[in-house]
Amino acid sequence: MTLWVESIGFAAAALTTVSFVPQVVHTLRTRDTRAISLWMYALFSAGVALWGLYGLMIGSWPVITANVITLALASIVLWHKLRERPQSPPG
Amino acid sequence: MTLWVESIGFAAAALTTVSFVPQVVHTLRTRDTRAISLWMYALFSAGVALWGLYGLMIGSWPVITANVITLALASIVLWHKLRERPQSPPG
Repeated sequence: MTLWVESIGFAAAALTTVSFVPQVVHTLRTRDTRAISLWMYALFSAGVALWGLYGLMIGSWPVITANVITLALASIVLWHKLRERPQSPPG
Repeated sequence: MTLWVESIGFAAAALTTVSFVPQVVHTLRTRDTRAISLWMYALFSAGVALWGLYGLMIGSWPVITANVITLALASIVLWHKLRERPQSPPG
């Protein structure tokens, strides 16, 4: 794989990973998650975990690195979204 | 690439792509984007566009397909977020 292709991969990985930082900051600052879809972050986190696994299988560092960090960031937003939802009664 | 690896790629692609559908539905229904970070969707959309390019370069259909669809969905959310922001005075 040429250096040029690898750098596109790293740039894409960097952008889609870094993009979650402003969302985490926004969520921590505002504590408002109402406009955020719970289903989005649940499905997205599962998908990102699978992307990490896929990266491992094809031995692609841009894919592995990006998705491990993205999973951590997305999980922070998901956690805050889960805490926003009213507690359903036990049992 | 084995069928098993390809299917992990497709499953990851499907999840991270489909995950934006509930966010688009949520945004269209509530018209509320305050909890969503503009910077996240701007950077994410740029990154997803680059991932599509990366997928083209390595000839990976899971990566290409996922990112073209994700870009379309993320752009809808970005569009609504941009419209939420107060119009800055011209000039």
